[in-house]
Amino acid sequence: RIRWALEEAGLPYRVESTPFRNRGEAHFAHQPFGQTPWLKDGDLSIFESGAILLHLGEKSEALLPTDPKGRSDVIEWVFAALNSVEAASQHWTLMHFFGAVDDSPGWKFVDSFLMESRLPHLERYLSGREWLTGQFSIADILMADVLRLVDRFDGLAKFPECRAYVARGLARPAFQKAHADQMAHFAAADRAREN
Amino acid sequence: RIRWALEEAGLPYRVESTPFRNRGEAHFAHQPFGQTPWLKDGDLSIFESGAILLHLGEKSEALLPTDPKGRSDVIEWVFAALNSVEAASQHWTLMHFFGAVDDSPGWKFVDSFLMESRLPHLERYLSGREWLTGQFSIADILMADVLRLVDRFDGLAKFPECRAYVARGLARPAFQKAHADQMAHFAAADRAREN
Repeated sequence: RIRWALEEAGLPYRVESTPFRNRGEAHFAHQPFGQTPWLKDGDLSIFESGAILLHLGEKSEALLPTDPKGRSDVIEWVFAALNSVEAASQHWTLMHFFGAVDDSPGWKFVDSFLMESRLPHLERYLSGREWLTGQFSIADILMADVLRLVDRFDGLAKFPECRAYVARGLARPAFQKAHADQMAHFAAADRAREN
Repeated sequence: RIRWALEEAGLPYRVESTPFRNRGEAHFAHQPFGQTPWLKDGDLSIFESGAILLHLGEKSEALLPTDPKGRSDVIEWVFAALNSVEAASQHWTLMHFFGAVDDSPGWKFVDSFLMESRLPHLERYLSGREWLTGQFSIADILMADVLRLVDRFDGLAKFPECRAYVARGLARPAFQKAHADQMAHFAAADRAREN
């Protein structure tokens, strides 16, 4: 997400790695939940991808418009992508990933929360729209990436507008470059560990 | 949350109600997922409590500092409250509410996600801190309200720092007034429906 935004805005950046296990005090000082990513920009250290994208948005109109209405629309959709959709999809995708999909009330609750309370509304909203707001923005980076992970477990089968929207996002040159570079970065980190 | 923030900042406001069922097109035009709340401020209409609080934060230093470091710290914790904690606690509290707590892998996944991957880190972070950042802010309004709902189902029993933090938040006069006024508003709306 961060890399995609940086590529959209044409901002210079450098990527560093952190070990997957045994993360120490220095890591927790930057990210109190022990996760990745965080951004260093001058004296600032920022965690949470939403906060990082909002910070980058302040640096480029390609990510966040400066007029009050356009800016407000994007910010509400940044939160909607994360809190209305990802908050519902995160458990759904993780439970698919960890094989916790079964006939239990727990899974049914998680599944219906996403499939009935969230995606039908988003599907309706996206009908006739290219992006969430009047221009491509950080809100689309977040929403397209959230839905991309749902689509990986075939969760968009009944939501063609959502699926077409994801395809539009992933077709952007900035996503293509960010994704290819990140895969190359992971591969190089793997090779470094083996040597 | 919105009312609490407005009371902290001393901003004037007016509260309106919307029917719980059969929400129509006008409702969805303001809130595409059919939920509440949304804020009207001049020409702007904003949904998502995070976006609304950020908007209110721009109007008052009592909610969001203006220096770059203080502002950045608050914004990252706004997202952390919603995306690292509420994204984990929302399913947990809803499944308690709807009686979906059982021995299934689904519930165990939801429970351990909050109790093992989130709250222990927050507990450690809160140790020795009064608020999430250098001053009380919109991040604390969100985090205290998120944890208040977890505490209602006894989810903070093993996290005394979190519990003490919630108590500090709820003891603030602005919360007390917002909560009492909101309960009175609900009661008046109920009476109006009966007549």
